[in-house]
Amino acid sequence: MTIAEQFRINATLALKDADASKKTLGTTLTDKIEAKAADKLQTLKLAEQIAEMQNVLYASRDRKLLVILQGMDTSGKDGTVKGVFGQINPLGARTVAFKAPSNAEKDHDYLWRIHREVPGKGEIVIFNRSHYEDVLITRVHGWIDQAECERRYAHIRDFERMLTETGTIVLKFFLHLSKAEQKRRLEERLSDPDKHWKFDPQDIAERAYWDAYQRAYEKALMATDTDSAPWYVVPADSKTQRNLVIASIVMEALNNMHLHFPPGNPEYSKLLID
Amino acid sequence: MTIAEQFRINATLALKDADASKKTLGTTLTDKIEAKAADKLQTLKLAEQIAEMQNVLYASRDRKLLVILQGMDTSGKDGTVKGVFGQINPLGARTVAFKAPSNAEKDHDYLWRIHREVPGKGEIVIFNRSHYEDVLITRVHGWIDQAECERRYAHIRDFERMLTETGTIVLKFFLHLSKAEQKRRLEERLSDPDKHWKFDPQDIAERAYWDAYQRAYEKALMATDTDSAPWYVVPADSKTQRNLVIASIVMEALNNMHLHFPPGNPEYSKLLID
Repeated sequence: MTIAEQFRINATLALKDADASKKTLGTTLTDKIEAKAADKLQTLKLAEQIAEMQNVLYASRDRKLLVILQGMDTSGKDGTVKGVFGQINPLGARTVAFKAPSNAEKDHDYLWRIHREVPGKGEIVIFNRSHYEDVLITRVHGWIDQAECERRYAHIRDFERMLTETGTIVLKFFLHLSKAEQKRRLEERLSDPDKHWKFDPQDIAERAYWDAYQRAYEKALMATDTDSAPWYVVPADSKTQRNLVIASIVMEALNNMHLHFPPGNPEYSKLLID
Repeated sequence: MTIAEQFRINATLALKDADASKKTLGTTLTDKIEAKAADKLQTLKLAEQIAEMQNVLYASRDRKLLVILQGMDTSGKDGTVKGVFGQINPLGARTVAFKAPSNAEKDHDYLWRIHREVPGKGEIVIFNRSHYEDVLITRVHGWIDQAECERRYAHIRDFERMLTETGTIVLKFFLHLSKAEQKRRLEERLSDPDKHWKFDPQDIAERAYWDAYQRAYEKALMATDTDSAPWYVVPADSKTQRNLVIASIVMEALNNMHLHFPPGNPEYSKLLID
């Protein structure tokens, strides 16, 4: 079983807190600290391999990779970008953080600002939040009804199918955090002067909708999981394990692209005379 | 029968030269010149009404109108923009002419550059050529095979359904020109010094593929005609009739939006004190 298969969303998903901290990656090291260090080292190696592969992706200028990160506040979307994609040359990789839409964005369909940012040939783009907010926060707060939500699931499936059929690999990660771990992380932001800037009172307001968010995520993930644009549910209570799982799945996807540098043109050597 | 119903594409379309010059709009005036003058006057009135309605569309800032113009070279796409939309204030209307894709555009899926240009709330956007070129010129020259073409028909149907479900009215016009009339217009461009700048030898090269284009248009129009994003086949050998038909259909669509200026806020009058 590949790591991708192991974390691919189930046919009947129920987001349980227990699964957020589940340790599923085996290790032969018994000592907990050493196991964690080994996982970190392994992630770093993968991050370096991903960076190398990105170079080939860029040079062969054919395929495109879109990584979508979703998760509750403090689930570690920024940390994933840093830990998994931090070794990549910024030339061929881009992170896009989608915030509340601007007025110009609100004037258009909700996929308009998303489509603008999808990767071009040879590019890796990481979405920190995405069009999935348009079936999550909007649904939790009742800004759209269930019928509109179902229409959007269909738009999203269609849109992602078009992307995959035109050469984009789409990987979607739900960073599955437990409610208790979120509390711990919010407390840390309040007490640690170096992390205080990350605290946003709005996060507390959204935390009150925790159960509604879990249900909205369950529905959205189930409705938009397809073989060409799969959802992975990644236990995110441990940052180390979260990065290792995501790095492993990204690396598997890059390997499956069978990328190689384009062949050289022997005629070119003749051009350089002196 | 509305004019829109009259020119809506049939279930089995066969593009015949005879239909390109068919005069279907009745007139009580028997003299040919006077009839033409009456049609022109009627079109001008409609163009002015369209401009007035655009003002309401802009003020109410809710709906969006996308007009797609397709047709062979010299079929009058530019002339339609001028004749039907020429009275509109440029504030709320935009024409986008899609040429051969740039390198950055080629690096993305073919709908990427299209989606960027769709109308926002209160806006009218006219596409002079469009994503339909990606199932026309590409298919005629064999750059894509039939299977890819069918996949694109599906993408296009999905994309346009998403647009209509998010508040956009989509009207698609095929300017149906006869081969003989195209010849006459190309000759005119060669002989008239004021029109010579419009002549492009490439048009002659594409004319050699006339029959293949007619078949590609038949298939594409049939495959992408939907109740929410219908195709209209407009006889285009007569410029006067072409503009009258299109202006009538656009005006019908605007009327069906039941637009009105947003209600005033009586409190506002109190704000202006001196």
